[in-house]
Amino acid sequence: MRDAYQEQMAALNALLGEMCETVGHEMERATQALLEADLELAEQVISDHDALTERSAEAEEMAFELLALQAPVAGDLRSIVGGFQLVAEIDRMGALALHVAKVARRRHPFRVLPEEVAGYFVEMGRLAVELAGNARRVLASQNHEDALALMEDDDAMDDLHRHLFTVMMDRDWQHGLAAAVDVTLLGRYYERYADHAVSIGRRVVFQATGKTPEQLQEAG
Amino acid sequence: MRDAYQEQMAALNALLGEMCETVGHEMERATQALLEADLELAEQVISDHDALTERSAEAEEMAFELLALQAPVAGDLRSIVGGFQLVAEIDRMGALALHVAKVARRRHPFRVLPEEVAGYFVEMGRLAVELAGNARRVLASQNHEDALALMEDDDAMDDLHRHLFTVMMDRDWQHGLAAAVDVTLLGRYYERYADHAVSIGRRVVFQATGKTPEQLQEAG
Repeated sequence: MRDAYQEQMAALNALLGEMCETVGHEMERATQALLEADLELAEQVISDHDALTERSAEAEEMAFELLALQAPVAGDLRSIVGGFQLVAEIDRMGALALHVAKVARRRHPFRVLPEEVAGYFVEMGRLAVELAGNARRVLASQNHEDALALMEDDDAMDDLHRHLFTVMMDRDWQHGLAAAVDVTLLGRYYERYADHAVSIGRRVVFQATGKTPEQLQEAG
Repeated sequence: MRDAYQEQMAALNALLGEMCETVGHEMERATQALLEADLELAEQVISDHDALTERSAEAEEMAFELLALQAPVAGDLRSIVGGFQLVAEIDRMGALALHVAKVARRRHPFRVLPEEVAGYFVEMGRLAVELAGNARRVLASQNHEDALALMEDDDAMDDLHRHLFTVMMDRDWQHGLAAAVDVTLLGRYYERYADHAVSIGRRVVFQATGKTPEQLQEAG
């Protein structure tokens, strides 16, 4: 019974890891579509999104089977419930990549981003993909040190996000209100994407150690 | 055993309903603080938020107890897991009300909203509170008709959100970029708040009927 539980839990974690890889790839392509006004690529991200939704449903079914078949003990219960919560986080990352792709499609053939902020999105895109990759690694390793690194990457995202607004405010913005609205929303999408990656790290740390990242850091 | 399950499940649903009421009240006060540049009210919403976080933890513990103690059957399992997901939706609504209050606090003593868009936020705030109230009612009644009404209110929110951008774009915006960024983000907060209320309705409908709202409507 216990072996079956561990086998099925490993399969669920492997699927969650794959899904992290997928949403990293989606955000990578969505960012490229945004930067290069690449309609075809944006369309691809949008049409590939349904496959992620299917994987999410599959992962939830695996978690239900774990709950129903294994009559798990208390610690295992928390891991399984954590599985449902992880699906929701990853799902949301995929939805945010989809939003980025949709902005690129909506403005095509024009580029959404004025030259002076494009570099911020290159960097935010790179960080987002890195965060998704780190989330995947944390899921696989259940290692709390990986999770702490993940939180540092999120600090970098917050800094970029803040600087982006400074650029919009300080200089003489020549690109009109529509561009400002797009940049504001896009910045928010990347920031939220990073937040969800960090939440994945937090959940895994708690499951692996019974402590929050803050409690771990305090303990030295 | 079955009676104990139903009693505890009813207690969990009652707590979730109370939490919906709380996040409705938070959004009501946050909107008022925003419209009237009321710092004291904004501070209240911000400091009251911790209580919601505690209720969320309490609701999750109740759900864990249901899972651990009752060895529930398949249908009950879905209801309990749904409980965790409902906690996450309501939590997020509270976080969005908190964001609105923080914008009001950040801009104090100035009003955030230019006169020509303030009316939209009066209306979006009213709808948001209504949606939270409807989510509470759906939780209590488990009635799918209430849930369908909830989705119509969300359509109204989406319309308001779209019109808000039209006002910003079409007229000669005299309020600078900072106000445009604030209005864009605030609009997004209200829209997302409504989305979460709708998700609550969807989850309850599915649990009550085994069908999605769309499937129910098709069935006539």
